[in-house]
Amino acid sequence: MFKRGDWALLLEVGGGYRTVAKVGGGVVQTIRGFLDLDALVGAPYGSVLSSSLGVRFKALPATIFDVIEHRFKRKAQAIYPKDAVHIVRVAGVGPGSRVAEAGTGSGFLTAVLAWYVRPWGVVYSFERRLDHLRVAVDNIRSVGLDPYVELQLRDVSVSGFGLAGLDAVVLDMGDPWAAVPYAKEALKPGGALAIFSTTVEHLVKSLAAVEEAGFCEVSVEEVLARRWKPTLGEVRPETFGVVHTGWIIAARNC
Amino acid sequence: MFKRGDWALLLEVGGGYRTVAKVGGGVVQTIRGFLDLDALVGAPYGSVLSSSLGVRFKALPATIFDVIEHRFKRKAQAIYPKDAVHIVRVAGVGPGSRVAEAGTGSGFLTAVLAWYVRPWGVVYSFERRLDHLRVAVDNIRSVGLDPYVELQLRDVSVSGFGLAGLDAVVLDMGDPWAAVPYAKEALKPGGALAIFSTTVEHLVKSLAAVEEAGFCEVSVEEVLARRWKPTLGEVRPETFGVVHTGWIIAARNC
Amino acid sequence: MFKRGDWALLLEVGGGYRTVAKVGGGVVQTIRGFLDLDALVGAPYGSVLSSSLGVRFKALPATIFDVIEHRFKRKAQAIYPKDAVHIVRVAGVGPGSRVAEAGTGSGFLTAVLAWYVRPWGVVYSFERRLDHLRVAVDNIRSVGLDPYVELQLRDVSVSGFGLAGLDAVVLDMGDPWAAVPYAKEALKPGGALAIFSTTVEHLVKSLAAVEEAGFCEVSVEEVLARRWKPTLGEVRPETFGVVHTGWIIAARNC
Amino acid sequence: MFKRGDWALLLEVGGGYRTVAKVGGGVVQTIRGFLDLDALVGAPYGSVLSSSLGVRFKALPATIFDVIEHRFKRKAQAIYPKDAVHIVRVAGVGPGSRVAEAGTGSGFLTAVLAWYVRPWGVVYSFERRLDHLRVAVDNIRSVGLDPYVELQLRDVSVSGFGLAGLDAVVLDMGDPWAAVPYAKEALKPGGALAIFSTTVEHLVKSLAAVEEAGFCEVSVEEVLARRWKPTLGEVRPETFGVVHTGWIIAARNC
Repeated sequence: MFKRGDWALLLEVGGGYRTVAKVGGGVVQTIRGFLDLDALVGAPYGSVLSSSLGVRFKALPATIFDVIEHRFKRKAQAIYPKDAVHIVRVAGVGPGSRVAEAGTGSGFLTAVLAWYVRPWGVVYSFERRLDHLRVAVDNIRSVGLDPYVELQLRDVSVSGFGLAGLDAVVLDMGDPWAAVPYAKEALKPGGALAIFSTTVEHLVKSLAAVEEAGFCEVSVEEVLARRWKPTLGEVRPETFGVVHTGWIIAARNC
Repeated sequence: MFKRGDWALLLEVGGGYRTVAKVGGGVVQTIRGFLDLDALVGAPYGSVLSSSLGVRFKALPATIFDVIEHRFKRKAQAIYPKDAVHIVRVAGVGPGSRVAEAGTGSGFLTAVLAWYVRPWGVVYSFERRLDHLRVAVDNIRSVGLDPYVELQLRDVSVSGFGLAGLDAVVLDMGDPWAAVPYAKEALKPGGALAIFSTTVEHLVKSLAAVEEAGFCEVSVEEVLARRWKPTLGEVRPETFGVVHTGWIIAARNC
Repeated sequence: MFKRGDWALLLEVGGGYRTVAKVGGGVVQTIRGFLDLDALVGAPYGSVLSSSLGVRFKALPATIFDVIEHRFKRKAQAIYPKDAVHIVRVAGVGPGSRVAEAGTGSGFLTAVLAWYVRPWGVVYSFERRLDHLRVAVDNIRSVGLDPYVELQLRDVSVSGFGLAGLDAVVLDMGDPWAAVPYAKEALKPGGALAIFSTTVEHLVKSLAAVEEAGFCEVSVEEVLARRWKPTLGEVRPETFGVVHTGWIIAARNC
Repeated sequence: MFKRGDWALLLEVGGGYRTVAKVGGGVVQTIRGFLDLDALVGAPYGSVLSSSLGVRFKALPATIFDVIEHRFKRKAQAIYPKDAVHIVRVAGVGPGSRVAEAGTGSGFLTAVLAWYVRPWGVVYSFERRLDHLRVAVDNIRSVGLDPYVELQLRDVSVSGFGLAGLDAVVLDMGDPWAAVPYAKEALKPGGALAIFSTTVEHLVKSLAAVEEAGFCEVSVEEVLARRWKPTLGEVRPETFGVVHTGWIIAARNC
């Protein structure tokens, strides 16, 4: 049953339009007419909601990825879900993990990390730009993940993390090399470092910093997710797609 | 600090050998000599342990993926970590999720799912072969995830899941099409179905069953993880690698 | 030196616009003004040509792929250059080859094959649609490859090829399976068959026909060409790209 | 019909063994017994040849790629066929082309280029190591392509090509950057340069040299060929494969 504040995934019945909206959020406008989201409070999952134009929508509970994709405000380039879960894996992040992340950006990866560390863990997220931080605060609150996140306006390349014994440190920033030695100090022995790089020059400089700092178990992977068309009789990969996001460096604090 | 029963990742200092062993598990044999794992009880993370041949090992806390990769007994073809976390994502699995899985196989995916649903969630895992189930029980106990898993000897293609209101159902079996209608009954509205297929014929038959059962938001993706050589001066992808594991069908119960 | 009838690749000096035009073709309109192509007759390769708007263009000899990409009229879905040269390779096509192709479509692959079989070889190209054939005739004549091509309005699925002892047969059509037995008759012993498939259902039906007809050395490959951004300081793959065109089945007539 | 000196592809009837041997080459040893290759002189394509152990082989005319793969002596790392035809395409090489190549290595790419430039074209191939050159001479003669190849012991990084007005220059060497300015001098206006790089550092240095020398139309591509298992009922990509060979830089002399 939907509660006030839940996010609903609204799928046009028999149609191609989809949106995500907050249950109990009043009347919202869509390209298929107005939708009264208050009407979903207390309604069972799967209920049908009609718009002011008579278009019917099936209301399903939205996943964290649905909300991030449809509702998060985007200030900076955001990490893709395929890379976010890869980082979650190579950084060994799960329920209870204590993770530091820099930079916060719009908070996409922050939200994913926070979602997986619940209910005991915490994500310390650092950002040097106030405008990004403001967007991230709004995004993270909107999905109710603020209890698991500590945001801080701080340039970790200069000031470090001010933390110790972390399970993982994730760097998604223009100059992670300066932050790598601080990451080492902040990690517990065996803790994991993950760095996201989008160009080969960034990759090579980041790798050099990781080796220089004495990390071990260094690996680099790129993750490609190819979408297929699920139409029976003509099943095949989509013609066009994303062929590059970035490389993920992973290493352990030995 | 290591406690009895923890898994340690043991990395040869300055060398290429690595293994995973249970802290407090007595003396174990490796190709670098015998290691006394009792000596690690109470030792801090990052301690050095010497083998009977004088080879020194750094002892780090192992991640769930380290243990699965090195220590799980393998009876059936096991799902790759890259696909496991993709399934975790598309199935919306996280702390608190109630998930059903069939078949259990050797319990690799079961362990990954269980690790992410902690501490409130549960994985109901179904397998029709007793020999597989026995291996899975051992594997899952060895990592202490048995409180989050309910294993059952049952052919879900014939008998269904006997459950309702699940957040997700994951099918990794030879004939998932017969189980798809039961999966629909077992899911909550909006709940997610994920199916793993390794051949195009299996993929097409599974897709047909998913459409026939009335699922919506159907997608198919293949995930390719390309490892790179992190050697400075000659950074490049590895020459050889895994170029196929399978496709992951995802759908929602509308 | 450019001769009347040559194709020139015209690159805007210091800019991003590029076009392909026929030397001696009179005045042509571009989005950068009019260009007098007669002025290039007798001019050396690399000459600069100014448009009516004063935009300067460097004139280089165009390759066959430049002309096909920019100037060929497109009636049907055309095969990509990356797949065309793969077919040339697996079909063993080169100077002197005798090749049959069906269907002709807009003649893109026909032109590539014809270009490589020069000066002794021949491409027999079959098409059942007259409107496609008319476009193909124009395209092939425009690049002067008509001496190497014999176009025929004929449904090879019904009537076969009417040829024997061919080095290679290439099928790029909706229902190649019906033509496969005829292809076998038309090939010399050891001759190569290549089939282009764009969906898994098409691929599986085509493979079944190839095995049924008794071909050997059967292989299937998909070719992915990933473009990289060559900008120094930010070298990386392009973000978006073509991730699917089709599979190429290759086999030998044993 | 086979002539003395032709290469035959010998496929075990109903079996998995294959080899390539020279027709008229006398008795050769295989793991399936001795084969008398003189018996094939004058025999039609598709003839069956029995070994001394009674194993039957179907004899088909070998393609240039069959011979290169099975018979060429390998001294240096050889370029893959998928990359060779990509280079042929981006360098605009075809019948009649005048191409320079450095280094020769074992002559794999030399042979492919020579095969496509027949009957009017020529490949000038430069190598600084005498031991490589000797292997290349043998390889190229063995396929009868020596009339189309001029091999030279010369370090083009130091001495340039000593040629002018070429259609294409192909560089597959450790330090192509030093040779790039010489390549520009050797090319006709509009001529194509292709460089093969296997590491990102090599790629970046090569790109810098190409831009420095004033080439235009610079592109970088990597070509991935994924083999599929053609077994009906379980059609799927092969599990393991080559995931990296190198990048191909292409540019035009503007």
